[in-house]
Amino acid sequence: MHEEAANNAAMTDANALDRVRIVLSRTTHPGNIGAAARAMKTMGLTRLYLIEPASFPDPVADARASGAGDILARAQVVGSLAEALAGTVLSGAVTARRRERSVPVRSAREAGAELVGFAGQGDVALVFGTETSGLTNEDVALCSMPVSIPANPAFSSLNLGAAVQLLCYELRMAAQAPVVPAPAVPEAATFDEIEGFHRHLEQAMLASGFYDPANPKRLLQRVRRLFGRIRLEKEEVNILRGIIGALERKPD
Amino acid sequence: MHEEAANNAAMTDANALDRVRIVLSRTTHPGNIGAAARAMKTMGLTRLYLIEPASFPDPVADARASGAGDILARAQVVGSLAEALAGTVLSGAVTARRRERSVPVRSAREAGAELVGFAGQGDVALVFGTETSGLTNEDVALCSMPVSIPANPAFSSLNLGAAVQLLCYELRMAAQAPVVPAPAVPEAATFDEIEGFHRHLEQAMLASGFYDPANPKRLLQRVRRLFGRIRLEKEEVNILRGIIGALERKPD
Repeated sequence: MHEEAANNAAMTDANALDRVRIVLSRTTHPGNIGAAARAMKTMGLTRLYLIEPASFPDPVADARASGAGDILARAQVVGSLAEALAGTVLSGAVTARRRERSVPVRSAREAGAELVGFAGQGDVALVFGTETSGLTNEDVALCSMPVSIPANPAFSSLNLGAAVQLLCYELRMAAQAPVVPAPAVPEAATFDEIEGFHRHLEQAMLASGFYDPANPKRLLQRVRRLFGRIRLEKEEVNILRGIIGALERKPD
Repeated sequence: MHEEAANNAAMTDANALDRVRIVLSRTTHPGNIGAAARAMKTMGLTRLYLIEPASFPDPVADARASGAGDILARAQVVGSLAEALAGTVLSGAVTARRRERSVPVRSAREAGAELVGFAGQGDVALVFGTETSGLTNEDVALCSMPVSIPANPAFSSLNLGAAVQLLCYELRMAAQAPVVPAPAVPEAATFDEIEGFHRHLEQAMLASGFYDPANPKRLLQRVRRLFGRIRLEKEEVNILRGIIGALERKPD
């Protein structure tokens, strides 16, 4: 049985785990960055992205990583969530708070399976917020789906390192699961393509006078909710942008 | 979907989680005891047992518990693993090392389901060793089954708090799973009854001159392996002790 477990480990879809970015946004305590690196390495993940960490590199992070210093050494420090998500085909925003969103919340287990499934098409990402306040609504809206760890409703505040450990574990479990031949799926649009579409639409709506520039946020959020519920394909983004472009050129 | 998740949480079999003891053996760093308490509480577990902790109570443990101080306040400090397991009907020894054992190793997920299943019959326990060296072979032998967290074979050393988090999560997931009506099972023997049997057998073997008292360990280990592979029932323990008693009284 133990030997069987070892064999399963060897059969892990390492490619899938290699395509997962763990993104920590504005982490306050460097110790938690080290703990996250250690947690990632125990589950075979390697790609750490840090958005504006309060202190990095930091000896406290090195100490807590204890053996996972290579993950810290290769970590990408970036200036924004958009930069961390560039090129990804699916991203999950880890959040404990209930939010008014139409995109269904995935459990840790569901998210692990979904991210590993999409990793065949390109990079995927899991995004963790700051220790105290988590992710902003804007950050969550930039990701494909909210992800929630099933927890005690009366006390759901996991330590950041523990949350990273748990989700990396579910990613590993999903990568180890027997491969079910996936139905042929059309090519998914990347984060950049979808953001390009949103920028294009926003400009078109603005130019057309459709929305009130004094209060643009609410409309943009609604548009994001709408398109956030579907996994846009590359070709669909092209079609949508084609429509917008045609309408923009339409003489009035 | 989020509401559905909340409903599932409400449906958690709290009784099962209330019957799980989390046992930390000879923990070196009080911070890890605090982290374990926090991890337990996020998953709805409450019963912490500490075997000879290096320092407890300790302000470092209180700080790391951050909101789970009630778990620390109610923690049971005991002097031995046998004391921590007294009255339990099933126990898992969390171990990363491969051991020469005939009892099949359970994965974290398998162990969660099995422990929650047995919680209907009485208390169950999960035992975690020291940060550096884990559990001794003697500790593992005292438990019903070894439990291993699927991990990167090249770097499997989870932080103690992270290991507690992950297993408490699997216990919660198992407790939330739809209840499958279990087949009627005979009443399981408790830890105390099984240990009583082993002591009885050992005395009988010694009195009969069956084993070399100068090197008793190997034989006792083999006996434990043999009976460790089956879940002894109460009645089976009585039958076995009846046989031993009868043989002891047999005139030679």
